[in-house]
Amino acid sequence: MPIENKAPGKDVSDADMIDKFPLAAKKHPDHRSRFAVQGVEFGGDLVPIFAGPNMVESEALIVETARSVKASGAHFLRGGAFKPLSFPYRSEKYTETREDGLAWLKIAREAAGIPIITEVMEERFVDAVADVADILQIGARNMQNFPLLTRVAKTGKPVMLKRHFGCSLRDWLGAAEYILIEGNPRVILCERGVATAHTHRSSSRFLLDLQVVPAAHEVTHLPVVTDPSHATFWRPWVKPMALASIAAGADGVMLEVHPDPDNAAVDPLQPIDFDAFGQLMDDMDAVAKAVGRRVK
Amino acid sequence: MPIENKAPGKDVSDADMIDKFPLAAKKHPDHRSRFAVQGVEFGGDLVPIFAGPNMVESEALIVETARSVKASGAHFLRGGAFKPLSFPYRSEKYTETREDGLAWLKIAREAAGIPIITEVMEERFVDAVADVADILQIGARNMQNFPLLTRVAKTGKPVMLKRHFGCSLRDWLGAAEYILIEGNPRVILCERGVATAHTHRSSSRFLLDLQVVPAAHEVTHLPVVTDPSHATFWRPWVKPMALASIAAGADGVMLEVHPDPDNAAVDPLQPIDFDAFGQLMDDMDAVAKAVGRRVK
Amino acid sequence: MPIENKAPGKDVSDADMIDKFPLAAKKHPDHRSRFAVQGVEFGGDLVPIFAGPNMVESEALIVETARSVKASGAHFLRGGAFKPLSFPYRSEKYTETREDGLAWLKIAREAAGIPIITEVMEERFVDAVADVADILQIGARNMQNFPLLTRVAKTGKPVMLKRHFGCSLRDWLGAAEYILIEGNPRVILCERGVATAHTHRSSSRFLLDLQVVPAAHEVTHLPVVTDPSHATFWRPWVKPMALASIAAGADGVMLEVHPDPDNAAVDPLQPIDFDAFGQLMDDMDAVAKAVGRRVK
Amino acid sequence: MPIENKAPGKDVSDADMIDKFPLAAKKHPDHRSRFAVQGVEFGGDLVPIFAGPNMVESEALIVETARSVKASGAHFLRGGAFKPLSFPYRSEKYTETREDGLAWLKIAREAAGIPIITEVMEERFVDAVADVADILQIGARNMQNFPLLTRVAKTGKPVMLKRHFGCSLRDWLGAAEYILIEGNPRVILCERGVATAHTHRSSSRFLLDLQVVPAAHEVTHLPVVTDPSHATFWRPWVKPMALASIAAGADGVMLEVHPDPDNAAVDPLQPIDFDAFGQLMDDMDAVAKAVGRRVK
Repeated sequence: MPIENKAPGKDVSDADMIDKFPLAAKKHPDHRSRFAVQGVEFGGDLVPIFAGPNMVESEALIVETARSVKASGAHFLRGGAFKPLSFPYRSEKYTETREDGLAWLKIAREAAGIPIITEVMEERFVDAVADVADILQIGARNMQNFPLLTRVAKTGKPVMLKRHFGCSLRDWLGAAEYILIEGNPRVILCERGVATAHTHRSSSRFLLDLQVVPAAHEVTHLPVVTDPSHATFWRPWVKPMALASIAAGADGVMLEVHPDPDNAAVDPLQPIDFDAFGQLMDDMDAVAKAVGRRVK
Repeated sequence: MPIENKAPGKDVSDADMIDKFPLAAKKHPDHRSRFAVQGVEFGGDLVPIFAGPNMVESEALIVETARSVKASGAHFLRGGAFKPLSFPYRSEKYTETREDGLAWLKIAREAAGIPIITEVMEERFVDAVADVADILQIGARNMQNFPLLTRVAKTGKPVMLKRHFGCSLRDWLGAAEYILIEGNPRVILCERGVATAHTHRSSSRFLLDLQVVPAAHEVTHLPVVTDPSHATFWRPWVKPMALASIAAGADGVMLEVHPDPDNAAVDPLQPIDFDAFGQLMDDMDAVAKAVGRRVK
Repeated sequence: MPIENKAPGKDVSDADMIDKFPLAAKKHPDHRSRFAVQGVEFGGDLVPIFAGPNMVESEALIVETARSVKASGAHFLRGGAFKPLSFPYRSEKYTETREDGLAWLKIAREAAGIPIITEVMEERFVDAVADVADILQIGARNMQNFPLLTRVAKTGKPVMLKRHFGCSLRDWLGAAEYILIEGNPRVILCERGVATAHTHRSSSRFLLDLQVVPAAHEVTHLPVVTDPSHATFWRPWVKPMALASIAAGADGVMLEVHPDPDNAAVDPLQPIDFDAFGQLMDDMDAVAKAVGRRVK
Repeated sequence: MPIENKAPGKDVSDADMIDKFPLAAKKHPDHRSRFAVQGVEFGGDLVPIFAGPNMVESEALIVETARSVKASGAHFLRGGAFKPLSFPYRSEKYTETREDGLAWLKIAREAAGIPIITEVMEERFVDAVADVADILQIGARNMQNFPLLTRVAKTGKPVMLKRHFGCSLRDWLGAAEYILIEGNPRVILCERGVATAHTHRSSSRFLLDLQVVPAAHEVTHLPVVTDPSHATFWRPWVKPMALASIAAGADGVMLEVHPDPDNAAVDPLQPIDFDAFGQLMDDMDAVAKAVGRRVK
């Protein structure tokens, strides 16, 4: 039949789940992966929160933020030492701190007693990042960088795999399979917005796809978290989309938190400040409890 | 500048809100319309629930459903007597009941003591539908059928305006303005899914856009409800997306409820049954309370 | 199978073409509708050209344009007397000329000896428009306004059915079927751009979908034309997309032509002037001949 | 202003072109890069054709294909020795031939006297691929794999940069800039389809975006080619979209050609056979000549 037919009841076989995703696929309807990272459990009733700045701008900034988000109950400190940029040019302000940033993350980790998640963009830095990070993050643009996935998987560290903004759930699970096949079972999926015709603001480039949360849970046992900050690119929408993520069943939420959002080195329209984060932790916990889970 | 630039900080003027949406635009940051329909208040702490079958298949079905959803706490009975179909052909099962359906809705309204929302597709039926309905629904395909909007607005009845699956928030507010300009202030916006590259199931044609809830609240005082059933087209996703809608700040939720979903005359993959609806009312109420609102 | 699978070889039945599109579907591989409108043949080797301003601004403008495009070889004069607007407010410049516009189109038709295509937006104006127009145009926003389609079909006049920017080929053929079922076989499909994530300019809202040309030809015998002006919304792209349309097999091209584009009452970024149109007619004819057809 | 506004006339500055794309941006309106690869000139009146199988399945197959497409006038032989797969599992048939494939390409290159384009997916294989290939191809999934871009750029070999199916023109030019900044000016952009709501067949995953051809030409001096085979994923649409590409101004066309398409190791729905390719060369040449260029 020559034309597109997305009608209900279309008989598509289950072969994909067996052939393409033997490791990511659920084995029974209630199958959910449960694993701990530094004592924080994924896939259970806890909904872990990842909080911190877009970039590790300085030692002072990351240590201050680590202490603050830890005090508010965050489970992981996020922050980028390496940062992909669509263009090869950096402004003076927008500078990757790279090895320095990794060192500062390590200091913040110790100072605040909070585990770290940070992005790794290149194979040659995998070991250096793995030395600091408790979870290695694969950015959206690298979702299908298969050699990098393989290399990261081999570290044995947990991996957060962000969904590319143009890729399907099928593509995403295929990428997860590249990690799982290396014998690394601790894969966390992260939805961070998709490219669509309408995102509602000229400053917003993506739409947070919350439908993918139940859709992923239907087929895979892997935990699914969301990143409302990067998806919405707009501070006022972060709270409602974070709460909606938890209500939709997300197994974690990643949030951009900065001591002085308006002066963030990058993307100043999206981070929330410490007070807003503290309040949001309470609000997220309330919603989590309403759906039988907890943030705190 | 010749290429697309959706970067943060782009300086776009507020002129649109003043020139194009003088009636739909918020006049101050906390501006929210509040109005009652048959004693049910919109825009306040209550999150009204609209429940019922896709189609008014028979008198017995609609009366039974009205009584059941009312008993579970629904605020409005939904059901279509007129039903747009992409093709001019109807199967034996999939038949509009039209004037009969309207009469049965009226009977159900009296029998169960629940107000009615139903779709009107043609100007010539506006009076007949308005005679039965407490809220007139404009379907997604008619969102920009401006003569119909004008005619419906003139009835003075509240209007639910569904967002077309290919239209922007800007288009949607423009359509609302066509109703408001007739002196009819009771307009309810309803998000029911957008066409995107990936909807996660071959049986699912749309993606519920929850980001539009805070986006609409940012610019308009009109209440915004969602329709997870039509958006997802898939029963198991209705609950998580209904809960997420409320957490995102939706001012109402529309749900397809059928006594025997597998044998529904149309779209049998999406309705939930009476028991599931009763349970979902409790779950929605819990989430609503977590965000300072209530369903019951 | 629970996740989206758009893989090659998916076995989808041909039932749709028989059940949903019995009139629009091709009956054999070479099946193409051929019909004449005022002596201009559709579906043959000729590629008819529709040219004129977005709006019938004045009698002088439309008569001047009619003579000019006719002299350059255009087959139909296009121009809107009625014009859908996303908002109910009109600037002083952007005013529909309505009945006056229809009268001026009639004058232009006689003065230049060129048949007319113009849009009809409301059932109540169908007769008035049909009195002037040789082809009745259904705008994208009304593609699924089924009562309007039925009413227009009953005039017996040829109908150009524009594709909605959010609708599928399947939806489009379904709408065509509503016209065909009234016994009106002269339906012309018109692609005018789809809403997508990226349109390449902030001033451009749509992407001209040329892939739909062979896709439609594969399943339907109806002629398919394109409208590069509305799709691209950007004058410099009109010529390449018009030429590409013909190379892709389009059975006609609609172009916005204005004596003074920069001062057009609406959408001044998209029309081309008389000289550019004259040159484009030559260029289109050259491409048409390269693919075994002709514009002149 | 809080809502999306893609209206005409929006005043967006040209700063992007100067700041973000100093090397890719046109310096004057007629600026077009011209460079030769093995004597084949890009950016001039010639429209080079890249033809060959999806995968280098065997020595016999690639040598036979090289000779045939060369005889028909193709300028480059395409074929993958390395092939990205969404899943880590390969069927028996669908096996990368890797180093063997590279060796066979080298043999075919000598046997038929035709230069080679082939994809490089990993930094560690860049030298091996560069030893064989006259042009190094970066696949869509690696468009923003910046370390790979840098590494490939440093070889000094011409680079074909495929556009990711979810990325904007802005993203694409940013990626090109990563190559140009290494002092490698021979960058060829290749459009191969975008993810959209509607692609018209359940077997087709992308829509060939021909609007990007004039859009790219408006801002960059780099040549732009298209790949209708991968975009459409459907043999009958390859010819119309190839012809449309040339009419739209494409500076080259990449085509999948296989001696026995139905038995191709991968994606058997998209390649054309030798006879069809020979005929298409004539047809493309005719369209090219109609727009002042040539294929032969």
